[in-house]
Amino acid sequence: MTDFGVYTKPIAELFADAALPAIDDAGIANDEIDAFYFGNVLGGATTNETHLAPQVASYIGLTPETSVQRYEDACATGSLALKHGVRAVETGDHDVVLVGGAEQCTPKGTGIETSEMTRIFGSGAHKQYEQAPGMTTASVFALHTQRHMHEYGTTEKHLAEVAVKNHYHGSMNSRAQFSEEKTVEEVLDSPIIASPFRLLDCCPFSDGASAVVIVSEDAAESYGVDPIDITGISHQANPVPVADQPNPPSTDMVRRAAQNVYEQADIGPNDVDVAEIHDCFTGAEILALEALGLFEDGQAGPATTEGRTRLDGEMPINPSGGLKAKGHPIGATGTAQIVELTEQLKGESGDRQVEDAKQAIAHNVGGMTATAVVTAMEARA
Amino acid sequence: MTDFGVYTKPIAELFADAALPAIDDAGIANDEIDAFYFGNVLGGATTNETHLAPQVASYIGLTPETSVQRYEDACATGSLALKHGVRAVETGDHDVVLVGGAEQCTPKGTGIETSEMTRIFGSGAHKQYEQAPGMTTASVFALHTQRHMHEYGTTEKHLAEVAVKNHYHGSMNSRAQFSEEKTVEEVLDSPIIASPFRLLDCCPFSDGASAVVIVSEDAAESYGVDPIDITGISHQANPVPVADQPNPPSTDMVRRAAQNVYEQADIGPNDVDVAEIHDCFTGAEILALEALGLFEDGQAGPATTEGRTRLDGEMPINPSGGLKAKGHPIGATGTAQIVELTEQLKGESGDRQVEDAKQAIAHNVGGMTATAVVTAMEARA
Repeated sequence: MTDFGVYTKPIAELFADAALPAIDDAGIANDEIDAFYFGNVLGGATTNETHLAPQVASYIGLTPETSVQRYEDACATGSLALKHGVRAVETGDHDVVLVGGAEQCTPKGTGIETSEMTRIFGSGAHKQYEQAPGMTTASVFALHTQRHMHEYGTTEKHLAEVAVKNHYHGSMNSRAQFSEEKTVEEVLDSPIIASPFRLLDCCPFSDGASAVVIVSEDAAESYGVDPIDITGISHQANPVPVADQPNPPSTDMVRRAAQNVYEQADIGPNDVDVAEIHDCFTGAEILALEALGLFEDGQAGPATTEGRTRLDGEMPINPSGGLKAKGHPIGATGTAQIVELTEQLKGESGDRQVEDAKQAIAHNVGGMTATAVVTAMEARA
Repeated sequence: MTDFGVYTKPIAELFADAALPAIDDAGIANDEIDAFYFGNVLGGATTNETHLAPQVASYIGLTPETSVQRYEDACATGSLALKHGVRAVETGDHDVVLVGGAEQCTPKGTGIETSEMTRIFGSGAHKQYEQAPGMTTASVFALHTQRHMHEYGTTEKHLAEVAVKNHYHGSMNSRAQFSEEKTVEEVLDSPIIASPFRLLDCCPFSDGASAVVIVSEDAAESYGVDPIDITGISHQANPVPVADQPNPPSTDMVRRAAQNVYEQADIGPNDVDVAEIHDCFTGAEILALEALGLFEDGQAGPATTEGRTRLDGEMPINPSGGLKAKGHPIGATGTAQIVELTEQLKGESGDRQVEDAKQAIAHNVGGMTATAVVTAMEARA
């Protein structure tokens, strides 16, 4: 993956900065890649670019015989491209699939002002019921989080602790958009964006790209790839609009996805050694930790304050810094989580290595809490 | 499928007008649909709507357990959603998949002026190399067609005959956007858009939706569905930008897709009884007929003039009226071709029924001749 931050270069060049090292790392030649599944969310609205898959494929030197296409499912885009890459390999349709995403969301990267970009991010909301009254990505997660605070006594300080922990992790990640640590006081002193979220509860607009190579068991052997295993992947939806979602803070779809993926991987939440969580807002991490079964309902806030989700805690969450500190170039986020966990499971994460990480899960959410993808990964012995 | 034309209703409602009758026709209950693959190209740019799949799924009453996602690959969008639906059923991942698309492109349907919509359609072109000098969808197919005229002596009159034939077919299709027949003189007297194309060589901007239900052999039997068989589907790409494409008028990717799909279906071009062709411009039909092997290189123009591609000719092409007369709501076009061919293979096409249609192919092209999908279908005995 690229460093996440600000890029003005063409999107194909940005993606190449992630894809070419990924292909090189796998040790597989370009003409051995059977398919390329590319994630991008906003190109049509921001830079007037659709149908990017064949263009990007040409730029990185894939052959015209490669089966190339684009995926878009809001912030879960990269994980759905991944799901289809995994399916294609699992079923024997393809042996080698390149999966990744690239996105430019920053005012400098796109030439689009923050207020207009906020409107464009709102495109994931129901046009008539949610966009019309002004719902934004921040406000929908704020609604869920407010309800969680009401039901379980989660506090603004709990939320701030999520930000502090993820900025601490991000300070050790050279690819993170933000390298500075933050204090609880700094978070609580930052301006309100959508109550209870303050500025430092929110992930940033980011530019960046990420890529992974999915190979069959046979291809891994014949090309001499040193892989980790994807042991499960589950994709679930919620009703739209949010008003129709059952018990919002429970994020029902994530509970279904988690249960499904634990069954596929034949593990339980207690077996998970490390997780990358979709912390677009601090409250989203709290909700996810409970929906994934990593903590009891209502316990994720206190657990965070107690340091149990820090790198040296019992359940390290977002060692990359998460969306909060690492950044969130939306179409690239799903596969960026997989990059982080691949390195963790290979023991290549340096200062922020989770000790003895064998089982990992990634959690990626799209739109106004409408799509969830949970992926389980396992280190090879 | 809906009638193609002008719709101002919300896109979920538009899609419902196609999907609910399709589900009803299949005789399958909503909660038996395992996955829903939805095609839409321009929603992000036109109506600020991304992540439409879960929203549309909720509107048509699919359960939250349904695996839902959006596809976008320019005008080939619907066919790529179809490809993945077919793969999911073929591999046993799912038994019943709803596939379809909806799009609003008209000035009235979107509130966007024609000139601005032309710019948005240009989003399928390479930003730096093609959009910058002003390439549009019309001009790229015009370039290919000019070269074909130079190499084979194809004439403006041959092109006009394609329009006349497709308007004739469209006049018998109550769902077509244009119901009036046109004459060669009317086509040749219409204003130049991108030489050699005149106004009546071009398909219109259209709003509309289409949907098909893909079922496994077992599901067809248990639900008592009366299906036709999809016997092959091939997806190929060309390099981007167009300047890098080998011998443009040969549309190399279509030749590869056709060869591949004929092998899958165990048929040859001589076995094809009826075809729906991506005639976004008249020249595109000429090029496709040759790339698909339905006519020798250089012979599609004269064959059209001789009436060989008319409903009563030896090789009926675009009995629906094609994109030219039926209309082209881009994300809905791929599955609309499948709807037409399903009816043809079932003998349900009324006045425009192709006699004894047993083998059919659909040809769908995306972007600046960058993606091609060819699908083969067969009637059950």
